[in-house]
Amino acid sequence: MRNQYMELAIQMAKQTIGQTAPNPVVGCIIVKNGEIVGLGAHLKAGEPHAERHAIHMADDKAKEATMYVTLEPCSHYGRTPPCADAVVEAGLAKVVIASTDPNPQVSGQGISKLKQAGIEVEVGVMKEEADALNEIFFHYMTTSKPYVTLKSATSIDGKIATSLGESQWITGEEARRDGHYLRREHDAILVGVDTVIQDNPSLTTRLEEGGKNPIRVILDRTLRTPLTSKVLTDQKAPTWIVTTEAAPLNRIKEMEKRGVEILVMSDETISISPMLKVLAEWKITSLLVEGGGRVNDSFLRSGQFQRLIKYMAPMLIGGEMAKSSFSGEGIGRLVDAPKLRLQSMEPLGDDVKLVFHKERID
Amino acid sequence: MRNQYMELAIQMAKQTIGQTAPNPVVGCIIVKNGEIVGLGAHLKAGEPHAERHAIHMADDKAKEATMYVTLEPCSHYGRTPPCADAVVEAGLAKVVIASTDPNPQVSGQGISKLKQAGIEVEVGVMKEEADALNEIFFHYMTTSKPYVTLKSATSIDGKIATSLGESQWITGEEARRDGHYLRREHDAILVGVDTVIQDNPSLTTRLEEGGKNPIRVILDRTLRTPLTSKVLTDQKAPTWIVTTEAAPLNRIKEMEKRGVEILVMSDETISISPMLKVLAEWKITSLLVEGGGRVNDSFLRSGQFQRLIKYMAPMLIGGEMAKSSFSGEGIGRLVDAPKLRLQSMEPLGDDVKLVFHKERID
Repeated sequence: MRNQYMELAIQMAKQTIGQTAPNPVVGCIIVKNGEIVGLGAHLKAGEPHAERHAIHMADDKAKEATMYVTLEPCSHYGRTPPCADAVVEAGLAKVVIASTDPNPQVSGQGISKLKQAGIEVEVGVMKEEADALNEIFFHYMTTSKPYVTLKSATSIDGKIATSLGESQWITGEEARRDGHYLRREHDAILVGVDTVIQDNPSLTTRLEEGGKNPIRVILDRTLRTPLTSKVLTDQKAPTWIVTTEAAPLNRIKEMEKRGVEILVMSDETISISPMLKVLAEWKITSLLVEGGGRVNDSFLRSGQFQRLIKYMAPMLIGGEMAKSSFSGEGIGRLVDAPKLRLQSMEPLGDDVKLVFHKERID
Repeated sequence: MRNQYMELAIQMAKQTIGQTAPNPVVGCIIVKNGEIVGLGAHLKAGEPHAERHAIHMADDKAKEATMYVTLEPCSHYGRTPPCADAVVEAGLAKVVIASTDPNPQVSGQGISKLKQAGIEVEVGVMKEEADALNEIFFHYMTTSKPYVTLKSATSIDGKIATSLGESQWITGEEARRDGHYLRREHDAILVGVDTVIQDNPSLTTRLEEGGKNPIRVILDRTLRTPLTSKVLTDQKAPTWIVTTEAAPLNRIKEMEKRGVEILVMSDETISISPMLKVLAEWKITSLLVEGGGRVNDSFLRSGQFQRLIKYMAPMLIGGEMAKSSFSGEGIGRLVDAPKLRLQSMEPLGDDVKLVFHKERID
């Protein structure tokens, strides 16, 4: 069931995706006698929630009005006091909610509080669209792991380089720009140390209109990241290196001196699932994996990803020896291959962008 | 500029794609006083052309009427007398034409004949749509080679099998059915002898509603095609084997005894371009290439293809050793990689179908 006010609340929330982490995006509209008297969105963690902004704007007119809000108002004290209390105090007559709180420990408590105060509550209006807004936040809350997106840019036949190793500019400008939007939307970006050694990438967001850089996470079992690499020297964003007990202690110290966070996994190899748990503890809610081939393979085989974004250039490269976006072992048996679902496809300049989702959260 | 009658003529022609080869598809409408008085389409080579059907239906009403026809009426004696003469005889006042004749030797002659008889002629109405109908025929006429479509069905990452060699049912039922429509639409289907040896395919059109089988063309340099293979024994469609002077003569004779056409290329290897010339001489206007990897690679490196149809299953397989749709050498330098243009993309069941065109005819 569509609803024009909820639709607007969702649109408002949508525009703030990427700026509210680790909080969800939320949009809120207050309507009285068929007129909008207040609107708000949560803009940044630590700042007021969407409901507070809208109530503030509505002022006296909030009394007896109806609130449309994309997410169940919170009932607990965080960095701001509970919104459910503010809604009760403002004297709203009715609250229409799209999504319930994903946190299993508090889900429904905001609703209960409103009902106890005699407020009429309607839940689930445009729930699917609203849930999609906070897919990342909901995943993070329910699994205690970041939402993982694998990105790859290949030719039609899945190649990232020719057999001679040429790889620059396979996809066009629009696809590359879109890739920078992805970086801006994610809390962190992850690559393997081999990518750092071979390409010396900066892994920053480069958009004309600006945008925050993701935290740079390097998987580096034995701390081979060159001290001269951009991620260690350019100071453009924090760099974290995930390493293991096989890393030399003096190297750890040298890197820490340079302001790099070193996360030591208690093993000789890096397993994806425990690594994601650690990143989540460090408040990383969303992780963009940009390869290379072996890192992609580790995520593929562990099943620890939620989304694949593929940019496909309208070009054929071929060649048995030409590199694909996934190297390493791969999946041996078809029955074990992760099944995805096409979410969207669109032309992007001359290229095609395809977004696939894993069917279920692991 | 759109035109409702030409649109209908194009729709009619479109429905006959695949049944008129080596002739083009053509639709024709005759309109008098705002009413359709005749319509026709060319249904099969050797049978009347679209104009004749429409004139026959309109009978006396063709006099002073306007004809809408998707392709310039022919001016020469083929298996049927020239349509331009029939149009003049029937007394039409005006002829609206979408595409001109692609054959450079006769292009414009039909139009001249009509004009000389005092008929008003308008050319180019919905030309683009009409040209697209006969892309294959036009390519065949202007290059004396078949229109070549490469087909591949892969995982998202371009694999046709896992590293353990599992390959069955990567794409779903709808994609496979669509593949049979492709077979029905093409005059011939081509595979390499390795595919015959490994998979023993029948290469026939298998659709509930029926449809003609393409001629089966096997690339087989030394005539290794097993005498027990389906393509040699099932009698469901003609089988042609393209071979070389490296083939043993006794083997040639043995195969010819079984009714197989043997086309011997005058070389020790099969070059794609001369092979296509030979197929065109044998009236193959359209060729569907279904691999395997080395055959695809030969077409890729020769640049001798016009279209790529890719079915992509929403699955990741990965693995350095897992087979891709193109094997062999591939393109060494990016600048040499064929650039394609996305023509369409659509979901097909759980899969995605992408159609890419080469920008120019080679």
